[in-house]
Amino acid sequence: MPLLTNLTADRKTFVTHLECSMTGEIYPADEVHGLSRVGRPLLVRYDLPAIAAHLDRAALQSRETDLWRWRELLPVRHVRDIVSLGEIETPLVPLPVSGGANVLVKDEGRLPTGSFKARGLVMAVAMAKALGIKRIAMPTNGNAGAALAAYATRCGIETVVFCPDDTPDINVQEIALQGARVWRVNGLIDDCGAIVGEGAKQGRWFDFSTLKEPYRIEGKKTMGLELASQFGWELPDAIFYPTGGGTGLIGMWKAFDELEALGWIGPKRPKMFAIQAAGCAPIVKAFDDGTEHAERWENAQTVAAGIRVPRAVGDFLILRAVRASGGKALAVEDAAIEAAVQQAARQDGLLLCPEGGATLAAYHYALSAGLVSAADRVVLFNCATGLKYPMADDSRTLDRHAPIDYDAL
Amino acid sequence: MPLLTNLTADRKTFVTHLECSMTGEIYPADEVHGLSRVGRPLLVRYDLPAIAAHLDRAALQSRETDLWRWRELLPVRHVRDIVSLGEIETPLVPLPVSGGANVLVKDEGRLPTGSFKARGLVMAVAMAKALGIKRIAMPTNGNAGAALAAYATRCGIETVVFCPDDTPDINVQEIALQGARVWRVNGLIDDCGAIVGEGAKQGRWFDFSTLKEPYRIEGKKTMGLELASQFGWELPDAIFYPTGGGTGLIGMWKAFDELEALGWIGPKRPKMFAIQAAGCAPIVKAFDDGTEHAERWENAQTVAAGIRVPRAVGDFLILRAVRASGGKALAVEDAAIEAAVQQAARQDGLLLCPEGGATLAAYHYALSAGLVSAADRVVLFNCATGLKYPMADDSRTLDRHAPIDYDAL
Ligand SMILES: Cc1ncc(COP(=O)(O)O)c(C=O)c1O
Ligand SMILES: Cc1ncc(COP(=O)(O)O)c(C=O)c1O
Repeated sequence: MPLLTNLTADRKTFVTHLECSMTGEIYPADEVHGLSRVGRPLLVRYDLPAIAAHLDRAALQSRETDLWRWRELLPVRHVRDIVSLGEIETPLVPLPVSGGANVLVKDEGRLPTGSFKARGLVMAVAMAKALGIKRIAMPTNGNAGAALAAYATRCGIETVVFCPDDTPDINVQEIALQGARVWRVNGLIDDCGAIVGEGAKQGRWFDFSTLKEPYRIEGKKTMGLELASQFGWELPDAIFYPTGGGTGLIGMWKAFDELEALGWIGPKRPKMFAIQAAGCAPIVKAFDDGTEHAERWENAQTVAAGIRVPRAVGDFLILRAVRASGGKALAVEDAAIEAAVQQAARQDGLLLCPEGGATLAAYHYALSAGLVSAADRVVLFNCATGLKYPMADDSRTLDRHAPIDYDAL
Repeated sequence: MPLLTNLTADRKTFVTHLECSMTGEIYPADEVHGLSRVGRPLLVRYDLPAIAAHLDRAALQSRETDLWRWRELLPVRHVRDIVSLGEIETPLVPLPVSGGANVLVKDEGRLPTGSFKARGLVMAVAMAKALGIKRIAMPTNGNAGAALAAYATRCGIETVVFCPDDTPDINVQEIALQGARVWRVNGLIDDCGAIVGEGAKQGRWFDFSTLKEPYRIEGKKTMGLELASQFGWELPDAIFYPTGGGTGLIGMWKAFDELEALGWIGPKRPKMFAIQAAGCAPIVKAFDDGTEHAERWENAQTVAAGIRVPRAVGDFLILRAVRASGGKALAVEDAAIEAAVQQAARQDGLLLCPEGGATLAAYHYALSAGLVSAADRVVLFNCATGLKYPMADDSRTLDRHAPIDYDAL
């Protein structure tokens, strides 16, 4: 009886080595790595011609649709190291009124722990398990910590998580309940990251900060793989991605290159739009300034906690992808984010997270500025369930013991 | 390019008529109906031999896996009436430590609006749209109202929702944000239902209470269809279902009969376990008393708001299915529910809702009482995302400006 076959079938794997994203320097696979010698992210490389000879799109399409269907393009070698909480392929939800006829939301809030962080962390934790890592620490704005805690708990790895002290309660509670030790720190995510870094230097734990280990990006890559499959091996015309550390954007870009090398898609790429909040827009500033790296953004502030990331270690990778795609980095005000969340909920019944709202607001701007046309097929990333964020309470109370005025209901 | 094909492909439909679940009296399809003349739920009937001649399992399996793949077994006639927010097939998540080697959680929290109420409401709202209904009211413990609001808003139907005044804020807020008028009432769900009923009698709105319109059950039926497909056209040995109005249990039971009539599964049925909270267990009492109907449960109280349903209009249908299956109705204490939620999260990294926790607690009891064996393949229903419910906060604070004692982290 075929049940959870992607989690149980032995499959050939094709990782050849890792490579510094800045210098191209080569590192061996199947060993513990953090950043490269020059302090930049490592990228996993595969024997793509061998994959092309081994697997085709039809074989892939006959598998169950969860994330592990892409196993040949993922780093986990052995079935025994797979960790899973049900990483389904996320749906594309049309936004006909608040978006337009050609606007689809990739609703990542359906993943385990309610955000797309599950994609990156399920991969990173599986590799940590494979490599024998026993204790992990991470700075988080909330969602990544929840995914780390869940997967690490599931395979018996201990976790310590640090988050800004104004992280929404629901995130903090979820992380703790799923078995991590959680600390609220009076600072931002990179301040939390400094504590994690110091502890790692002291040998207390492995550092799981965004892009500081090589495998989260491989998990996030599956967003690009899924889009290609869902769009029938074409790609949308534009992608709007709420950008903090940028793992997903970098991951999708990598996915597209790998798919083209396999001969599964052509050279056409979506315009990649990196969306940030006006109160924390280091990538937008660097894009506009034409620089390769981004400076730390001081006094970062936005309702969209997931993209309140003052400094990204993969800044140059984000900027390269956006530029190469003919896209743009765009900043949106918090008021526009909140209005977009309201609009999608009240007009199309879809509850976005603020980061998802940011992509809708940015899309409206891009449309008005002629950066995309209404005929372009566009994907907006809603990276987490809107239920994790504070909402207003517009309810009224009714006393059933008093006479009820039905006209007023 | 194949994209959202189940939402756009014209497909033959097979509804023949509706039938009173108590008397068998026949009602015409394609007209507005509430309860039957004797005040009991109506069931939708299909020309099953014609479906069997028209469609086979292989054809079904080649479609995208969302709920609308089952179109021939659903009541919606025209593509234009389909409403959708991305009703994915929900994953089966193993619970190896807190459950056991053969325990799978059907994680319904991944559906739109974070609960399995989406299944019932997407169908009921699509039919309301097809039948020209313009205004709907509903009593809810939270999750059903959220799903109603989202789908109705999406197709321009006005909604008024009544919930007990202690419904979790997050539910109330979500309902309002998704475009419904929400009233908090000082009473329980059936008190809210009385207000909805009175307004319906006055012609102010259509009554969408559980089982009071015929189509929610058809949507909920898809849980049974999915299980059959996911288990390779066998069925699990036992199903634990947290039972309020019981729509899902009744729906699955109906699904199994239809699948057998199609020749897609054999006569084997899972033992159906109807799980309630000790503080609100009318079905358990009726089961133990051997009666056909259940009395209203007075002073209903439980942390599992979704199953705080003192009276179910489909009581006899629940009881019949449970009895026919060789299962049982079981009540669990709130303390056991809370302990089970903790256990699943801390041991397996899976955050259950309290109602899901109730099924895990009941499974432990059933195992110890010999009602199921550890070798039985069991499905527990986690009907909503755990993120909608209050959690304890076990985090600690850390002052990054003070010296940090890394040994203590
Ligand atoms: C909801 C949400 N959106 C977007 C982001 C940004 O993701 P990335 O770090 O890949 O840019 C995050 C990261 O925390 C997030 O939680
Ligand atoms: C989370 C949850 N579980 C279980 C139930 C009970 O469902 P049913 O009415 O089908 O018995 C509900 C209903 O509100 C619910 O919200």
